Amino acid sequence: MLRHRAVISRLRQACRLQSVPSRLCIQACSTNDSLQPQCPSLAFSGDNSSPRGWRVMGTLLGLGAVLAYHDHRCRAAEKSPHIYTREEVRSHSSPETRIWVTLGCEVFDVTEFVDLHPGGASKLMLAAGGPLEPFWALYAVHDQPHVREILAQYKVGELSPEDKAPSTLQTSDPYADDPIRHPALKVNSQRPFNAEPPPELLTENYITPNPIFFTRNHLPVPNLDRETYRLHVVGPPGCQSLFLSLDDLYQFPKHEITVTLQCAGNRRSEMTRFKEVKGLAWNTGAISTACWAGARLCDVLAKAGHQLCETEAHVCFEGLDSDPTGTAYGASIPLARAMDPEAEVLLAYEMNGQPLPRDHGFPVRVVVPGVVGARHVKWVGKVSVEPEESYSHWQRRDYKGFSPSVDWDTVDFDSAPSIQELPVQSAITEPKDGETVQSGEVTIKGYAWSGGGRAVVRVDVSLDGGLTWQVAELDGEEQRPRKAWAWRLWQLQAPVPAGKKELNIVCKAVDDSYNVQPDTVAPIWNLRGVLSNAWHRVHVRVTP
Amino acid sequence: MLRHRAVISRLRQACRLQSVPSRLCIQACSTNDSLQPQCPSLAFSGDNSSPRGWRVMGTLLGLGAVLAYHDHRCRAAEKSPHIYTREEVRSHSSPETRIWVTLGCEVFDVTEFVDLHPGGASKLMLAAGGPLEPFWALYAVHDQPHVREILAQYKVGELSPEDKAPSTLQTSDPYADDPIRHPALKVNSQRPFNAEPPPELLTENYITPNPIFFTRNHLPVPNLDRETYRLHVVGPPGCQSLFLSLDDLYQFPKHEITVTLQCAGNRRSEMTRFKEVKGLAWNTGAISTACWAGARLCDVLAKAGHQLCETEAHVCFEGLDSDPTGTAYGASIPLARAMDPEAEVLLAYEMNGQPLPRDHGFPVRVVVPGVVGARHVKWVGKVSVEPEESYSHWQRRDYKGFSPSVDWDTVDFDSAPSIQELPVQSAITEPKDGETVQSGEVTIKGYAWSGGGRAVVRVDVSLDGGLTWQVAELDGEEQRPRKAWAWRLWQLQAPVPAGKKELNIVCKAVDDSYNVQPDTVAPIWNLRGVLSNAWHRVHVRVTP
Repeated sequence: MLRHRAVISRLRQACRLQSVPSRLCIQACSTNDSLQPQCPSLAFSGDNSSPRGWRVMGTLLGLGAVLAYHDHRCRAAEKSPHIYTREEVRSHSSPETRIWVTLGCEVFDVTEFVDLHPGGASKLMLAAGGPLEPFWALYAVHDQPHVREILAQYKVGELSPEDKAPSTLQTSDPYADDPIRHPALKVNSQRPFNAEPPPELLTENYITPNPIFFTRNHLPVPNLDRETYRLHVVGPPGCQSLFLSLDDLYQFPKHEITVTLQCAGNRRSEMTRFKEVKGLAWNTGAISTACWAGARLCDVLAKAGHQLCETEAHVCFEGLDSDPTGTAYGASIPLARAMDPEAEVLLAYEMNGQPLPRDHGFPVRVVVPGVVGARHVKWVGKVSVEPEESYSHWQRRDYKGFSPSVDWDTVDFDSAPSIQELPVQSAITEPKDGETVQSGEVTIKGYAWSGGGRAVVRVDVSLDGGLTWQVAELDGEEQRPRKAWAWRLWQLQAPVPAGKKELNIVCKAVDDSYNVQPDTVAPIWNLRGVLSNAWHRVHVRVTP
Repeated sequence: MLRHRAVISRLRQACRLQSVPSRLCIQACSTNDSLQPQCPSLAFSGDNSSPRGWRVMGTLLGLGAVLAYHDHRCRAAEKSPHIYTREEVRSHSSPETRIWVTLGCEVFDVTEFVDLHPGGASKLMLAAGGPLEPFWALYAVHDQPHVREILAQYKVGELSPEDKAPSTLQTSDPYADDPIRHPALKVNSQRPFNAEPPPELLTENYITPNPIFFTRNHLPVPNLDRETYRLHVVGPPGCQSLFLSLDDLYQFPKHEITVTLQCAGNRRSEMTRFKEVKGLAWNTGAISTACWAGARLCDVLAKAGHQLCETEAHVCFEGLDSDPTGTAYGASIPLARAMDPEAEVLLAYEMNGQPLPRDHGFPVRVVVPGVVGARHVKWVGKVSVEPEESYSHWQRRDYKGFSPSVDWDTVDFDSAPSIQELPVQSAITEPKDGETVQSGEVTIKGYAWSGGGRAVVRVDVSLDGGLTWQVAELDGEEQRPRKAWAWRLWQLQAPVPAGKKELNIVCKAVDDSYNVQPDTVAPIWNLRGVLSNAWHRVHVRVTP
């Protein structure tokens, strides 16, 4: 496939000179006559073609490239050598008319793939009837050989020469305006930006410094102006909406709480080691702690006229980050949590005493203590109370847990609840896996946290893979009952058993509901690689 | 030791004829002179003794018994042949004066044992300076060879002949008035009564019928009169107490909820298989579900003048069941839970539409949805709001979880929180371990539940010990969000893989905080055998 891409690229250059229908191809391909009249349609240029063109190109690229191109053309031609206009492609934008998309000059019928799309059918549908490029520019994960390979299976033809549109091939970079990041962050994805602090920095401080706080973006970072920013709080039926400036938000009582945020995908890389999953390869650092300050959501909702109602309802948040179609990041939490003063849900405008950094939601983000990071909507622009959960892709078709037996062919996203509170978690940050430690005494450090305000009451550490255990010392602040929103850092100084050449260090935490972490990762494996909270294991060598 | 006990029993009969000091003993023992003058004190009778008595007894019991008695007497005499009056024993009732107790005619200095007492120091202290019999009658678990063996190590002497008090040896049975129970119950302890339904009955019904609802009593069942019963609700400072009759309680709005109760010791027997623990050997049946009706605790507390306060406080409950010293069963829950209408804590007077059965707290018990059974105080007589948790033994020196590394020598009960919400749990009730199933298809049934109102969202079942999983079908009522107080029953019909001669069936549940059960029992083992929620495993044979 790499060769394939190289050839496409060189062909594009060649097309600017003169590209042509392929007699070579027809001669070398199967004898299926139907191919013959369609072959001319494979031209990349709208110009008239001639055999001379091929000779020029052969001279320019060399015989190897020509043969490769011939090979590619033959495979494509075998399947779908039709020619379509952009107008025709546009008419295929629903399951009824079938769903077509283009990439470069190629046309694909992805109707059968829509429900298999790892990012969700709804995301792929955004591109229905049009080019994939603007979306691939946003979700750079697509630009990989295996994705192109999947796509190739659905090829039905190519764009007519009149409709090749080089401009869409060079989409402007929607991430060009993203902020500059701290070089210590370990980047899992540049576009959208996703990065975690290295473990040895993570537990250096109880409060994670803003520049190395883990960053989980789904879209480009919007560049918002504090003066013109307005938070749209939709009022209940018959009431007016609020449009709150930052100064308006400052008028609400300022509430300050220390909260740990964790991505549902934290420690996903350990699941991947067992079996492949779809998702960013987070290590142990998709978790961080900050002191957040802002207005309580319950105060703002009350101001808008909302009350807790008997029937179940949800508070939906929309971010001001959006994709090229204008679809914003979105999520929701139950109204009961939003309206509960004890749940301390914030519309936060400060992070560790500073205005929110752009990567963390400037000027305002939602902070939902005890709940998965995905609901802490950044750059929040709209808040509404709805009878149903947010219809956002990330609420309904992502961030849910499934049995290890469920795969992309059998998954039913409606069958699982959206992740809200997270399960008990802990990890070792020192020493690191593969490190060599001194004989004598070893110091083991890490973090532990649980969702829903449940305090961590104990961390057990083993040096022998889980056969025997020692109780670690919990550092950090004592937690308020039912409001243990922040992690505990912990450490254990333990003698290295004499004669040991290696240690299998393991940690596991217990929360105040006495929930514990599962022993192993395989039985909690799931196709999205979320909720990875098995015992954390680190293997180290001991210097003699 | 069994021989020892048989001898004691026969000796008691013999004593009624005439029991005597032992010349045989002195002759056969070591030559330690100090033994000689003290041997007479070992007599069981206050009567004057004579060598003739021994001859009579020898004739009655036979030489074997005499030799056994002689052996016992020698061992005792080696250690502590002093003679004490009851008056003297009574003066040893505190750590300063040392703590003595008697059993039969023997005197023990248990000062060093008090902190090691599995039932807690405070319980043993109730007997300080006096006889153990009234307590052993209450806690029948003591009357075992290994307990007598432990006690023997602390022997310091015997009671003077004048102070033998046969009346205390025949304490009237405090359990004589206990109700009659259903024969289907599997009894783990008769005194106090502790019993569970057999697994195959347990999941026959979503609502457990009253007669087979698991019973966990700590003391004899009080026999209370509905007409004279009063619930003492202590008012806040400056306010009067309430003394509520059953009819008074009926005046509060009647609140009805279906709640699963689970003992902290449910599935303890699986822990015991790994390593011995102190506690009743519950199997999977220390859990049951009923529809409870009563007054909400928050309404009653409000009526008494209580409000939620800023500082942490606790609602303490006292039962009307008590031990011979008048110490009642007691427990507490946080005031925040008690005052939260959404937590639905009840003062229940009905169980499945009937007045509470005596074994389940007639006329009134506390029901704390989502919380360990130990806090659902039965026969509740007193409710008060206190700055600290209940000082009851069962709140502070029991029902807490510890690391597997903690034993009775190192345990610090103050270091762990009292169990309130329980972790996620599930078990297989059909087929039973060791059963033989038909080839073709197997039906697997069980229950799943989680504490804190967290709903069970999935149960995974494996036929191959946890290598592969299938999702079970959840039966029973849909759960209200955040108020999933009752269990889900589940079942899976699965083909038996061809050629399999045996199945290792495993189940594990997931709750809506995505907490899961741990894989194995060893890493959650604890000295009291509580919180046993590892994957439940059942091994069955397949008929060919």
